[in-house]
Amino acid sequence: MAEILTGAQSTLTGSLTMPPRVVALGGGHGLYATLTALRHLTRDLTAVVTVADNGGSSGRLRDAYGSIPPGDLRMALAALCDDSEKGQAWREILQHRFGPPRLPQETEVVEGLTGLEGHALGNLLILTAWERLGGPVQGLAALSRLVSARGRVLPMSSQPLNIEATVTGLDPSAPERRDLVVGQKEVARCRAFVESVRLDPADPPAEPQAVEAVEAADWVVLGPGSWYTSVMPHLLVPQLRDAIVGSSARRVLTMNIDSSGENLGRTPAEQVAAVLENAPGFVPNVVLVDERQVEDTAERRALEEIVSQSDGEVVVTDLVHRSHPGVHDVMRLATAYQDLLQSR
Amino acid sequence: MAEILTGAQSTLTGSLTMPPRVVALGGGHGLYATLTALRHLTRDLTAVVTVADNGGSSGRLRDAYGSIPPGDLRMALAALCDDSEKGQAWREILQHRFGPPRLPQETEVVEGLTGLEGHALGNLLILTAWERLGGPVQGLAALSRLVSARGRVLPMSSQPLNIEATVTGLDPSAPERRDLVVGQKEVARCRAFVESVRLDPADPPAEPQAVEAVEAADWVVLGPGSWYTSVMPHLLVPQLRDAIVGSSARRVLTMNIDSSGENLGRTPAEQVAAVLENAPGFVPNVVLVDERQVEDTAERRALEEIVSQSDGEVVVTDLVHRSHPGVHDVMRLATAYQDLLQSR
Repeated sequence: MAEILTGAQSTLTGSLTMPPRVVALGGGHGLYATLTALRHLTRDLTAVVTVADNGGSSGRLRDAYGSIPPGDLRMALAALCDDSEKGQAWREILQHRFGPPRLPQETEVVEGLTGLEGHALGNLLILTAWERLGGPVQGLAALSRLVSARGRVLPMSSQPLNIEATVTGLDPSAPERRDLVVGQKEVARCRAFVESVRLDPADPPAEPQAVEAVEAADWVVLGPGSWYTSVMPHLLVPQLRDAIVGSSARRVLTMNIDSSGENLGRTPAEQVAAVLENAPGFVPNVVLVDERQVEDTAERRALEEIVSQSDGEVVVTDLVHRSHPGVHDVMRLATAYQDLLQSR
Repeated sequence: MAEILTGAQSTLTGSLTMPPRVVALGGGHGLYATLTALRHLTRDLTAVVTVADNGGSSGRLRDAYGSIPPGDLRMALAALCDDSEKGQAWREILQHRFGPPRLPQETEVVEGLTGLEGHALGNLLILTAWERLGGPVQGLAALSRLVSARGRVLPMSSQPLNIEATVTGLDPSAPERRDLVVGQKEVARCRAFVESVRLDPADPPAEPQAVEAVEAADWVVLGPGSWYTSVMPHLLVPQLRDAIVGSSARRVLTMNIDSSGENLGRTPAEQVAAVLENAPGFVPNVVLVDERQVEDTAERRALEEIVSQSDGEVVVTDLVHRSHPGVHDVMRLATAYQDLLQSR
């Protein structure tokens, strides 16, 4: 890799060099980790976020108000709050979830009283911003300024979407049978082997500012996260996939640190293959993977093989949190991204 | 009145002279108007707010979570947001109320789906601050900084209170009969003549910081607002009343601009008499009244008579909003307060 320094290093040392333009696409905890890492590395950071969630607080708000689901956007916004006292307080507030009512025994239960339970305050704040400060994009931009977030949060589409998947193995007694699973929540939870995913509608309009951000980016980062319901959806929005495929940015695919969840034991090579199958034309320049995932030499070779077919390279490093081995360590992830950003 | 200038004038012209220490006590729209006026006049402004509301969003949250009702505190916080772009956006957000769900016909109604309807976002934000950033006082202080509010918002007590009133005329067929009405909402709405009000519990602890603020104040402003449920409650908290009575501050009682609502046609003199009866020991130094309320010479004399008994003075001026004759004009109110603050 060339040793030309981008603005990444300079940003860390406080200089005013042009920062690298980085777009991170995903949703949920995976995108949260990536954004937390990346906001230490660049001042020009854009999150492009899935809008297909139909579960929990997001699903209830989407159903009730017809909005795009706010939950993944809230996670991204919270990740971008800085480490100042204000930023930390806003992150706490955005992520706060209302608990069950603490009703004294004698209090009469009024209809609707428990309706707050489970809602994240940040979801309600985002809905309010959409009502009062502009639509999905303008409202989020205004809210970002109000909570001192570093960077932009954009929905991948301003229209709520649904995910459906064709799976096998849903019924252990008929392991070969293909089933249709409808809904992001349902796909994420089903313990079956996902063969393919689709969006409904199949050709949703991409958010134009998200497309522009990808087109202007130096780096596009996909993953980590729920493979079929947080990472892949971005490649299923045609305009967004075209922008990712056509961009002169370097495309990084960050693998999960285990193969459980939606990947159901797929090897890293199989996970990359699944992305390529579901998103024809997409070519990662860098696949970032934790060393534990490719300890097996054959698995590592298989991954290098599939990635090199598209002229990409595999970067193997240590990404695991020491006390929580199931999640990425944000500082290790930041170090890995920093090395990548400095390599171009 | 002496013509010694306090910091009020200096604040308006941007100098760094010590600003006058002003404490405004009340609740609801009346306190909102007073705070909006006063924040143009001093940088040292404290709102002390009633915590007896049992209706609407506040009542539901109080019942569900056992907190003090946040609604009047939210109104005060919104009033203190400054006129910068950020301040205006926060005011909009704090005051936003969730509407009814916009459910498409075919959507199944999930339990709890409509639970947001009627809640003010600011109430939910205050509850979250209490959970995450400290209790009633510390949480509000932290939230004030986050929304760039100018001044402090304090509950009059950190314990939720109830109001009950002895009224006559509730039943037109028995106009002399005394009835007990329980609850702030119920007292505010009953179309009866309030003889006396009490708090339940009768001797609630005052919030110590509110007591300290009153003791240190140069000016204490009571009213305008719902006479029995927003203005009088402060004088019914013993420690707070003692602080108001014992303070070396000048005490201003700002009258409402009409005699409807809880005053049910009482003249200004009768309204002042009602305060003095319900709060023995309280003596206003200035009673600020709109000129329309004392157009009748006899009514004006009656008011001057009762106020002069306690060595106070009546200030008659024009306070009415031109397009909304039922409410105070904030700029006229600010002008009246400015003239008062400059007179000491």
